[in-house]
Amino acid sequence: MKTIVKLDLDKKPWEQDGQIHNRWHPDLPMIAMVKPGDEFRVECMDWTGGQIGNNDSANDVRDVDLTQVHYLSGPIGVEGAEPGDLMVVDILDVGTFDDSQWGFNGLFAKENGGGFLTDHFPEASKTIWDFHGVYTTSRHVPKVRYAGIMHPGLIGCLPSKELLDTWNKREGDLIATDPDRVPPLACPPTSQSAVMGRLSGDAAKKAAAEGARTVPPRDHGGNCDIKNLTKGSRVYFPVYVKDGGLSMGDLHFSQGDGEITFCGAIEMAGYLDIKVGLIKDGVKKYGIKNPVFQPSPITPTYRDYMIFEGISVDEAGKQHYLDVHIAYRQACLNAIEYLKKFGYSGEQAVSILGTAPVEGHISGIVDIPNACATLWIPTEIFEFDIRPNADGPKIMVPPGVDVSFTS
Amino acid sequence: MKTIVKLDLDKKPWEQDGQIHNRWHPDLPMIAMVKPGDEFRVECMDWTGGQIGNNDSANDVRDVDLTQVHYLSGPIGVEGAEPGDLMVVDILDVGTFDDSQWGFNGLFAKENGGGFLTDHFPEASKTIWDFHGVYTTSRHVPKVRYAGIMHPGLIGCLPSKELLDTWNKREGDLIATDPDRVPPLACPPTSQSAVMGRLSGDAAKKAAAEGARTVPPRDHGGNCDIKNLTKGSRVYFPVYVKDGGLSMGDLHFSQGDGEITFCGAIEMAGYLDIKVGLIKDGVKKYGIKNPVFQPSPITPTYRDYMIFEGISVDEAGKQHYLDVHIAYRQACLNAIEYLKKFGYSGEQAVSILGTAPVEGHISGIVDIPNACATLWIPTEIFEFDIRPNADGPKIMVPPGVDVSFTS
Amino acid sequence: MKTIVKLDLDKKPWEQDGQIHNRWHPDLPMIAMVKPGDEFRVECMDWTGGQIGNNDSANDVRDVDLTQVHYLSGPIGVEGAEPGDLMVVDILDVGTFDDSQWGFNGLFAKENGGGFLTDHFPEASKTIWDFHGVYTTSRHVPKVRYAGIMHPGLIGCLPSKELLDTWNKREGDLIATDPDRVPPLACPPTSQSAVMGRLSGDAAKKAAAEGARTVPPRDHGGNCDIKNLTKGSRVYFPVYVKDGGLSMGDLHFSQGDGEITFCGAIEMAGYLDIKVGLIKDGVKKYGIKNPVFQPSPITPTYRDYMIFEGISVDEAGKQHYLDVHIAYRQACLNAIEYLKKFGYSGEQAVSILGTAPVEGHISGIVDIPNACATLWIPTEIFEFDIRPNADGPKIMVPPGVDVSFTS
Amino acid sequence: MKTIVKLDLDKKPWEQDGQIHNRWHPDLPMIAMVKPGDEFRVECMDWTGGQIGNNDSANDVRDVDLTQVHYLSGPIGVEGAEPGDLMVVDILDVGTFDDSQWGFNGLFAKENGGGFLTDHFPEASKTIWDFHGVYTTSRHVPKVRYAGIMHPGLIGCLPSKELLDTWNKREGDLIATDPDRVPPLACPPTSQSAVMGRLSGDAAKKAAAEGARTVPPRDHGGNCDIKNLTKGSRVYFPVYVKDGGLSMGDLHFSQGDGEITFCGAIEMAGYLDIKVGLIKDGVKKYGIKNPVFQPSPITPTYRDYMIFEGISVDEAGKQHYLDVHIAYRQACLNAIEYLKKFGYSGEQAVSILGTAPVEGHISGIVDIPNACATLWIPTEIFEFDIRPNADGPKIMVPPGVDVSFTS
Repeated sequence: MKTIVKLDLDKKPWEQDGQIHNRWHPDLPMIAMVKPGDEFRVECMDWTGGQIGNNDSANDVRDVDLTQVHYLSGPIGVEGAEPGDLMVVDILDVGTFDDSQWGFNGLFAKENGGGFLTDHFPEASKTIWDFHGVYTTSRHVPKVRYAGIMHPGLIGCLPSKELLDTWNKREGDLIATDPDRVPPLACPPTSQSAVMGRLSGDAAKKAAAEGARTVPPRDHGGNCDIKNLTKGSRVYFPVYVKDGGLSMGDLHFSQGDGEITFCGAIEMAGYLDIKVGLIKDGVKKYGIKNPVFQPSPITPTYRDYMIFEGISVDEAGKQHYLDVHIAYRQACLNAIEYLKKFGYSGEQAVSILGTAPVEGHISGIVDIPNACATLWIPTEIFEFDIRPNADGPKIMVPPGVDVSFTS
Repeated sequence: MKTIVKLDLDKKPWEQDGQIHNRWHPDLPMIAMVKPGDEFRVECMDWTGGQIGNNDSANDVRDVDLTQVHYLSGPIGVEGAEPGDLMVVDILDVGTFDDSQWGFNGLFAKENGGGFLTDHFPEASKTIWDFHGVYTTSRHVPKVRYAGIMHPGLIGCLPSKELLDTWNKREGDLIATDPDRVPPLACPPTSQSAVMGRLSGDAAKKAAAEGARTVPPRDHGGNCDIKNLTKGSRVYFPVYVKDGGLSMGDLHFSQGDGEITFCGAIEMAGYLDIKVGLIKDGVKKYGIKNPVFQPSPITPTYRDYMIFEGISVDEAGKQHYLDVHIAYRQACLNAIEYLKKFGYSGEQAVSILGTAPVEGHISGIVDIPNACATLWIPTEIFEFDIRPNADGPKIMVPPGVDVSFTS
Repeated sequence: MKTIVKLDLDKKPWEQDGQIHNRWHPDLPMIAMVKPGDEFRVECMDWTGGQIGNNDSANDVRDVDLTQVHYLSGPIGVEGAEPGDLMVVDILDVGTFDDSQWGFNGLFAKENGGGFLTDHFPEASKTIWDFHGVYTTSRHVPKVRYAGIMHPGLIGCLPSKELLDTWNKREGDLIATDPDRVPPLACPPTSQSAVMGRLSGDAAKKAAAEGARTVPPRDHGGNCDIKNLTKGSRVYFPVYVKDGGLSMGDLHFSQGDGEITFCGAIEMAGYLDIKVGLIKDGVKKYGIKNPVFQPSPITPTYRDYMIFEGISVDEAGKQHYLDVHIAYRQACLNAIEYLKKFGYSGEQAVSILGTAPVEGHISGIVDIPNACATLWIPTEIFEFDIRPNADGPKIMVPPGVDVSFTS
Repeated sequence: MKTIVKLDLDKKPWEQDGQIHNRWHPDLPMIAMVKPGDEFRVECMDWTGGQIGNNDSANDVRDVDLTQVHYLSGPIGVEGAEPGDLMVVDILDVGTFDDSQWGFNGLFAKENGGGFLTDHFPEASKTIWDFHGVYTTSRHVPKVRYAGIMHPGLIGCLPSKELLDTWNKREGDLIATDPDRVPPLACPPTSQSAVMGRLSGDAAKKAAAEGARTVPPRDHGGNCDIKNLTKGSRVYFPVYVKDGGLSMGDLHFSQGDGEITFCGAIEMAGYLDIKVGLIKDGVKKYGIKNPVFQPSPITPTYRDYMIFEGISVDEAGKQHYLDVHIAYRQACLNAIEYLKKFGYSGEQAVSILGTAPVEGHISGIVDIPNACATLWIPTEIFEFDIRPNADGPKIMVPPGVDVSFTS
C-alpha cells in the first residue's frame, strides 16, 4: 500500500509539510492526486494533534484547546471528480502505529465544551485504553474488554463555496439565538489555531477566517462519528469541488453509538487504507444529499445485550415532546445507575458507554408525547455476568480503581 | 400452553368478557392470576380492535377513532408480586391466527394524529401485508419481502396511583403549552370510548376519567414499539401494584426502528405465549427505572445494509441544536428520495421504512450543533439490487401499483 | 394457508386415507396436485408414527420397529413438473401441534440399529423434551435450554425407476460385502410394514417389494437431516418423475450437525407450510446432482462456542487415513468427556450433542494421514459457564437426574 | 507488542538464528521464555519458507520440496508450564508484512502429494491473491472478493517423548499397509531437509531422524488448518513437556473448511500477536485430549449461502458406508460443476473452495449407509448473483483468464 500522507508524530500538526488542516474550505489545495481505482495509505494524528498524554491526570483534557481541532489529513484529489459525482470510498483497513498502542477517552469539563451528560458529570476526567491486538482494556475501568471497531470519526469531501456559506449562515443564526451560552450552541469560524494545509499568506488568512470548523457532521459527512465506518465498509460521498478533496482523521479504536463522551471514543493516531472510485453524476442519479454507506462484513458480532429504555421525560420529571435526545439521555442514565450497582463509578460507567460498541436505537418516535430510545450494551464485554438474577448484583470493581481526574 | 385470555375476534373489544381494556389505571381488576414459573397464552386483538379492513381503500385509516385505542389483553396478576419487584417476562412465542393471515400499515391523516412525516405525507393511506409463514409481502408495495419479527408493540404493568398522577400531571403540563395544536401534543384522559375491563359502575367511570391513555411509552414500558421484543426475548418490568397486573397487545408482524408510520407497524391480531417470574425487590437491587430487556437468539439476521445519514438541519435548511428527531427525519427523507429513484412512490417508500426491519441508530449526539442519525435498510429485503453503481438506478416498480388512498 | 395433507394423530399411519407412505417408489400416486406459486400446509406424523411415548422408560426406543419408518406425507404433485426440472421449495414455516408440545430423543440399542457412538453407548435410552414457545428443555437433561430450529429431517421428490434401480443396486452391493453385520450396512427393500400410500393390490405389493427404504439421504435429498432446512429456507430439488412428487416428514424441533443420536434429533409431529415453484430444465442449466439450498434469515444466532477437535486416530489409538467419520467421533467423545466434568452422564452429554444446535465442521481433509473435524457447542445453551478457568469445573447436575433407560 | 521472534525474510529458514524448525521433537530448546500474562509478537515465514513466487507459472508448486515443510517459529517456553497443564493462548492479532501483500494457493501434482481432489485435478496449478486491506482478490480468479480471516494453519506445543513415539508407531503402522502408495499414506520421519532450531551436532541429527513431520494435525493440535483460529480467538493447548514449547506458522489470509486445496489456503508470511496463560493441571480437570478453543467475535459474517449436498456414493457410483470424506468430496464436486456454469474453469472453482471462507458441515452421519456432508459457499463473495433463477446461469468469467499451470 503506497503511503501518500506520511506524518511524523513527534512534530506538531502544522509542521507536517502542509498535509494537515483543521478547517473546511474549498480553497485548500490538494496535497496529492490519485486516480479512480487507486489504493493508498493515509496517516492521521489523533484528533487533538497530541495534546492528551498516556498518564493518570485529566489536566490535559481539562485544558485542551478546542480551537485547534480536528487535525485532518488531506485533502486528496481524485482525477476526474466533479461536483455532482459520488466518490466511492472503500475503507480497506484501519490500523494503529506499532509504537502507539493506546488511546484515550475523556469527559470535557462543562466549561470547555461539556457533552451529552455534562450536567451529571461536569468535571474533566480521563481514561487510558491499552490495545492488545484486536482487543482493548483500561487500567481505569476494570473487568471490561472489547474487540475494537477501528474507524475514522471524521471523513468527507471539501465543501463548495456555496455550501460553506450555507453552513456559516445557518450555524450563525443558531448561535445568535443564545450567543453567550456555555457551552456554546455551535462553533463559529475563527482564525485562532487554524491550520490551513498548503494555503499560505493572505489566502490562508482569508480561508481561516471563513472556514467551517470541523466539529459537527454536516451534509458532506464530516464528523459523523459513526462507529460502523470500520475496515471493510464502503461510503459514497457527494463531490462539491473539482477533484473532490477527501480529508479524514479523528481515528477511533472503539466507540458506541452517539459517542456519548464528547472527548470522545477511544481516540488514537493511526492510518487508513483507502480505495477510491467515482460514480459520475451520482448525486442526481440516486437523489443523494448526505453520504450513504454500506457496513463491513467483519464488524464484531455480539449476540446478547442488556437493553435500557429511556423516554422523553427529563431528569426533573418534565415532559418533552418526542425528544429523542432526552430519551437517549435517560436510557444512558438508566444504564449508568445499573452499572453502578456492580461497583463502577459514574465516570467509569460513562466511559464504558462512550467506548464500548454499544448501540443506540431510535425505538419509538411517533407515540405522542414520548419518544423512546434504547441503549444496547453487549453483555459479553464484561468479565462477569451483568444480567439480573434473584440474588441481586455483586460489587465487582476493586476499591480505589477509578478514572483519572484533574489535580 | 394454557390459554388464559381467550377472545372472539368476531366480537367487539367491549364484548370480550372484560378481558380487554384501553386505559392504564391501578384499579383495574386482575382477569386471571398465575404463579411465578407459569407459562400461558394470551390472545390479543389488533390495536384498533378491528377497525381496519383488508381492502384497497384508506377510508378506514382516515376515519379511525383514536380514543378507542389501544385494546389490551389483561391485566394478569402474578401471585406474590409486590411494588418494587421486577416481573421477569419471557416472550416464549408470538403467533398469528390461522384465519387472519394479514396485517395493515398506514399513514394517518394529519388531522387525525399525523405522524413522523406528516408534513410530507398529510393524507391517509394504507397498505395490506399478507403473511406467508415467516415472510410477508404486500400487493401495494411490490418487490420486497421480509422475514417477520413478531412482537407486542405494547406491554407493561399497571401503574400505581402515584405514578398515574405523575403521568397525568406532566403530560397535562405539556398540553397546556399549546392546547389547540393539531395534532395534539399529547392525549389526555378521556372517558370517551374507554373500555375498563372488569371495572363497572361508578368505579369504571371514575377510572375512565382519570386513566392514562395507552398511546405513549412511559416509565412502565407501555407502547414502546420496540421491534426487538420478539419471541425469545426476556423483559424485566417494574411492579407498581399488588399482583403486578401485566397487560399487552398491539401485536406487530414486522416493524422498523421508530415505527415511522404512526399507524404503525404491520398491525395484526394474534397471541403471545408468556412465562413469568419475579425478582423480589429487584427495582432497588438493580436501580431500575424503565424496563430493561434482553434480545432473542432468533431475530432475523441481515448482513448488508444501505445506510442513510441525517443531520439536525431541517427541510427548510434551519439549523437545530443536537435534535435527533430532526436528524432521523432527514435520514428517512434521504432514504425515501433514494427509493423513489427505483420507482416507488413516496408513500410506498414510507411504508417500507415503517414495516421492514430497518434500524435507526443515534450515531452522533455531541458534535455541536448537529446530531447525526442513521437509518439502516437491509438490502436483502429487495428482490433487486439497490446498491449504487455507475449505471444508475432502474425503475423496478410496475406502473399503477401503489398504496391505497381514500376515496 | 390451505391444508392439503390433514392427518388424525390418533390414528395409525396406514389409516390416514393413503396420505402416508414409508417407501420411495415412482409408482406412488400423487395425493394432491398444486400449481407453481401455490402455498399450502402439510401435516406430518413423527417419524415413527407414534411408537415413542412421553414417559420415563426407554423400552419403546428399544423395541421400535425400524421396518416401519419413516412415515412421510405425500407425494404431492406440481403441475407442469417434468424430469430434469428443479422444484423450488420454500419452507415458509414449520410448526408444532397445540396438543403435542413435546418431542423425544434417543439412543438405539446396538442390536436395533445402533448409531454413531453405539460402541460407547450400546443400551437404548431416551430423553423427553418439552417445548416452551421457541425454546425447549428436558426433565432428563437439566440446565440446558435451546431455541428450536424446526425443520424436516426428510424431504425430497420421488425417484424415477432408473434412479430407484441404481439405489437398490449400489446398496445391495454394499450389503453383500458383510451381509450379517449388526447393525447392518444398509437397509434393503422389504415388504414388511411397508405403507404405500394410495397404491393398492398387486401394484402396492410390487412397489413395496422394490421400494427404497427411507433411512439414508440419497441423490434426491431424502433423509438428509440437515438442521438448516428450517423455516425461511429455500431448497432446489431435482425432479425425476412427471409431477415431481414431493414427500416430507421426520420433523425435528432441534438437532445438531450429524444427528449424532440416530434416534435422532428432538423428534416431533407437526406441520410444514410450503411454497413450490419450478425452474424448467434446471438440472442441466445448473449442473445439479443433489439438492442445493439457501439458509433462512431467521436461524438462531449463537456467538460463542466451545470447539472440540478430533483427528482420525480411533479410540484404540489406531491411525486411519483421512477418515472424517472417525475424526468427528473423536471430537464428540472429547466433548462428552468435557461435559461429564460438570456432572452430566455420558448419555446426557450425547443427548445434548444430538439435540442442541451444535455444528460439525470438516476442518482438515488433506493433511495426511489425519483428518481433523471440529464440534462446536454454543456456550449460551447452558445455564452455567462451561468455559475453562483456573479453578476447574464444578458439578452442576443434581444427583439422580438422568436419561431414561429400559426397565 | 514486543517481538520475540524476529525474522529476515530475505534469508533462508535455516539462516534465522535457530528460530525456525520443521519437525516436532521434545528436545528442541526453547528459543525464548515468557511469563503467563505476557503478550508478544512472533514473525513467521510462509509454510514453504519462500519456495513459491508471485508469478504466473505453477512450476514452483510442481517442484516444491515437501520434506522441508512446514517452517515453524518457536518453540517458546512459558515459565511454570508443566506436563498436564493447559496453555491458554489468545491470538490477539494476525498480520501481514507491509512489503508482502500477497499470498498463494495451489493444487499439488498428484505425484507430489496430490490432495483432496487430485484424481480430478492431477496437474499442478497456482493462483496468486493480492491483499487490499481486509480484502483479497486474484488476477487468476475474477469476480470474487473475500474479507480475510487470517489465522495460523499450524500451532501447538512440543510433544513428550512418549507422545512422539506413539505418533511414529501409529503412523508407521499405517504406512506399512501400503508402503509404495503415491501419494503416500503418511509422511514418516526423515532427516532430509530437517531444520532443528537451536539443536546442533549429534543431538540435532538424532532428533531429525525421529522427529515427527509437521504435515498432519495430531493430539497436540499442530496442522489443524482450522480457519476459525483467527485474531480474537482463544485456544487451550495440552502441555507435554516442561515449559510447554509453543510453535506456530503456516499463516493463512483466508481458507475454507477442509483446506480443500492441499497447497493450501491463501498462504502467506506474517506475524502473530500472542498472549499466554496457564491452567494448572487443566488436562485432567477438564478431561482434555485434543486442544479446545473459542472463536473470535470478529470473524467475517456472511448471511446467505449456496449450500451443496454430497452423499457417500463415489464418482463411480459405488456405495460407501457412512464415509464423510467421500460425501464432502461429492459436495465439492457438485459445487464445482455449478460454478463452471458461470464460466469458471474447474481449477478456478477449486481455488475458490480452498480459499474462500466456505463451510463444510457434517450434516448426517447415522443414516446408513449414506453420510451427508454440506458445503456452504457465501453468495456475497461473488460480484454477481449465483443463485438459481428461471433464466439459467450466464457466463461471467472473461475468456482467457485462468489459474497458472506449469510450463
